[in-house]
Amino acid sequence: MTSSVSTHRERLRRAAASAGDRGIDALLITPSEDYAYLLGYRAPAMERLTCLVVPADGQPALVLPRLEEPLARHELDGLDADLEIHAWDETDDPVQLVRRLVGGVRRVGLQDQMWARFALRLRAALDPAEMVTAGPTMSGLRQVKDADEIERLRAAATAADEAMTAITSEPLIGRVESDVSRHIRDLLIAAGHDDAGFAIVASGPNSASPHHTAGSRVIGAGDAIVIDIGGTRDGYASDTSRTAFAGEPPADFLALYEVLQRAQRAACDAVRPGISGAELDAVARDIITDAGYGDAFLHRTGHGIGRETHEEPYIVASNAEPLVVGNAFSVEPGIYIRDRWGARIEDIVICTADGGERLNTNPTDLYLVQ
Amino acid sequence: MTSSVSTHRERLRRAAASAGDRGIDALLITPSEDYAYLLGYRAPAMERLTCLVVPADGQPALVLPRLEEPLARHELDGLDADLEIHAWDETDDPVQLVRRLVGGVRRVGLQDQMWARFALRLRAALDPAEMVTAGPTMSGLRQVKDADEIERLRAAATAADEAMTAITSEPLIGRVESDVSRHIRDLLIAAGHDDAGFAIVASGPNSASPHHTAGSRVIGAGDAIVIDIGGTRDGYASDTSRTAFAGEPPADFLALYEVLQRAQRAACDAVRPGISGAELDAVARDIITDAGYGDAFLHRTGHGIGRETHEEPYIVASNAEPLVVGNAFSVEPGIYIRDRWGARIEDIVICTADGGERLNTNPTDLYLVQ
Repeated sequence: MTSSVSTHRERLRRAAASAGDRGIDALLITPSEDYAYLLGYRAPAMERLTCLVVPADGQPALVLPRLEEPLARHELDGLDADLEIHAWDETDDPVQLVRRLVGGVRRVGLQDQMWARFALRLRAALDPAEMVTAGPTMSGLRQVKDADEIERLRAAATAADEAMTAITSEPLIGRVESDVSRHIRDLLIAAGHDDAGFAIVASGPNSASPHHTAGSRVIGAGDAIVIDIGGTRDGYASDTSRTAFAGEPPADFLALYEVLQRAQRAACDAVRPGISGAELDAVARDIITDAGYGDAFLHRTGHGIGRETHEEPYIVASNAEPLVVGNAFSVEPGIYIRDRWGARIEDIVICTADGGERLNTNPTDLYLVQ
Repeated sequence: MTSSVSTHRERLRRAAASAGDRGIDALLITPSEDYAYLLGYRAPAMERLTCLVVPADGQPALVLPRLEEPLARHELDGLDADLEIHAWDETDDPVQLVRRLVGGVRRVGLQDQMWARFALRLRAALDPAEMVTAGPTMSGLRQVKDADEIERLRAAATAADEAMTAITSEPLIGRVESDVSRHIRDLLIAAGHDDAGFAIVASGPNSASPHHTAGSRVIGAGDAIVIDIGGTRDGYASDTSRTAFAGEPPADFLALYEVLQRAQRAACDAVRPGISGAELDAVARDIITDAGYGDAFLHRTGHGIGRETHEEPYIVASNAEPLVVGNAFSVEPGIYIRDRWGARIEDIVICTADGGERLNTNPTDLYLVQ
């Protein structure tokens, strides 16, 4: 599935307009998901400068190394008619080429993940222009998903659900976390991902560390197991977590889990246009805090998702922005009791005019495994 | 194979000393291969700031999000005794934390690939400190490989050679480039890579594009096929290219290939301490130019390799720096006749006191395939 030329032409137009609205004279977009979002193909970030120049007024231009030109022209397909393409040779200075293209700009927006080596050289070349991040401009566009993007997110979520169902149906006791993790990556690919991004398997005391990945620990009876998996499919990310328990869960774990499940469900149910990221975070956090686990909820409630696994909007106390129709984000509270156990439940949710729509459709119950 | 605590303690000490020599008061190193080189573990670059602060004088410190702390302490093993660790909470401002740690610095070195979003915020917080790239400081250290690093590069090169031997022993006519590419990735893993980074398969007219990856083209009799593959093993990269020909190569292709092979061999033989990247580039380029193909050699002769596939030193006309013992780099001239065919030969070479040592040991002859 590829997006049409008109989609990318329109995205370039909206990026220019949005930059202008923010008083930015030109966006400088190095290879990144912003670049792929605008141009429809991914280029590698490398030590040779590739930079899409999007002036608020005027024609966009693409500066790239000569040896990348044939591939870019091939990938750009019909879009290159709307772009000036400037290929530079090994002995040219591409920063000076960008400087000539943008002329006497006063305010420039640098792609959020542009390498500092380029940012510092561009700052010197464009002095005294003010440098700001292009992040708000680009995330303002990217955080509102169109129907095609939502279908891609849904397909990725469905694939992740399939992998999660498969792994929680297998015996896990006696297996090494990293072996299970590798196996999940195969399951993610088998379910239709193009890329198996990550497969966290955190068992026993490791489940109390929110960002434990997977190690040499052997899963044993009596372990809580946090499984947090995702990849990309058709350029869009999946990300889902479920918690399993090996053997018979004790009453205090079940009590903790009941609170978590209730908090996660309440936050999913509270999604609607107009609620802020902070308010949505509070919906989950208040339930967990009221039950006495407030200090054990170590992270924000969620993050936006799209071409990247983590993007705007963030569901966090510091985000006062109201959600809008088309936002896509995770709802993933967790409770972590240091050195003992932990649990997390994560679904991807779309903000629709009618409320939240979960793209992950697996039950959120505790998964009992052997 | 993991490096010892003393290795990383020493690398931190040398980074501080080298920063001081360059008039840099502190290095700010975000997750990257520089970070992994210094600390011995890889952390993901993400929207939450993780930053290793290496003052020219004083104790290094690691600023990281609270939820990354358990994993970092685990990975840092014995090294955390030498590092102040400052974990920040979701509502803290990590940039202000860095500011307090570095105090009234005058000159700060930013990790080369630090995201612009962090670079811009650090610049504002540390104003009026001058911001420079930490690239020369770090690459100055990293481009001189120690014995352990050379053994890792050798193991990676051997694995890549094994994959190259396997793919050039198979029939290729009638197969789709992208299928062959996927198969090479499996071969790279089977040969011992942890990660199959890339597998360029450029056939027929595609072989004339130096950075064609692999597409839907079916390989046919009479095609030149440039195969450029690599991955990582134990944290170190492999990268090798060979050219195959499907069926009987015509005389004009053989003539082109003879020049290329001679140029690549001459450049490998010319490696010694004291020769510059520019001079080494000229060794290959002069032979190709004298044979009338100068305009068809579209790129530099090579790039350094280590933790990254592309790093210092670059074998390019603009690099006047003399090579030193311990440098590791590719020697990869190519000749590309637009819309018709192309060829490239690439080996990784170590600069030793006695001259160049090729880590790739496959023959550089044209590979005839069916």
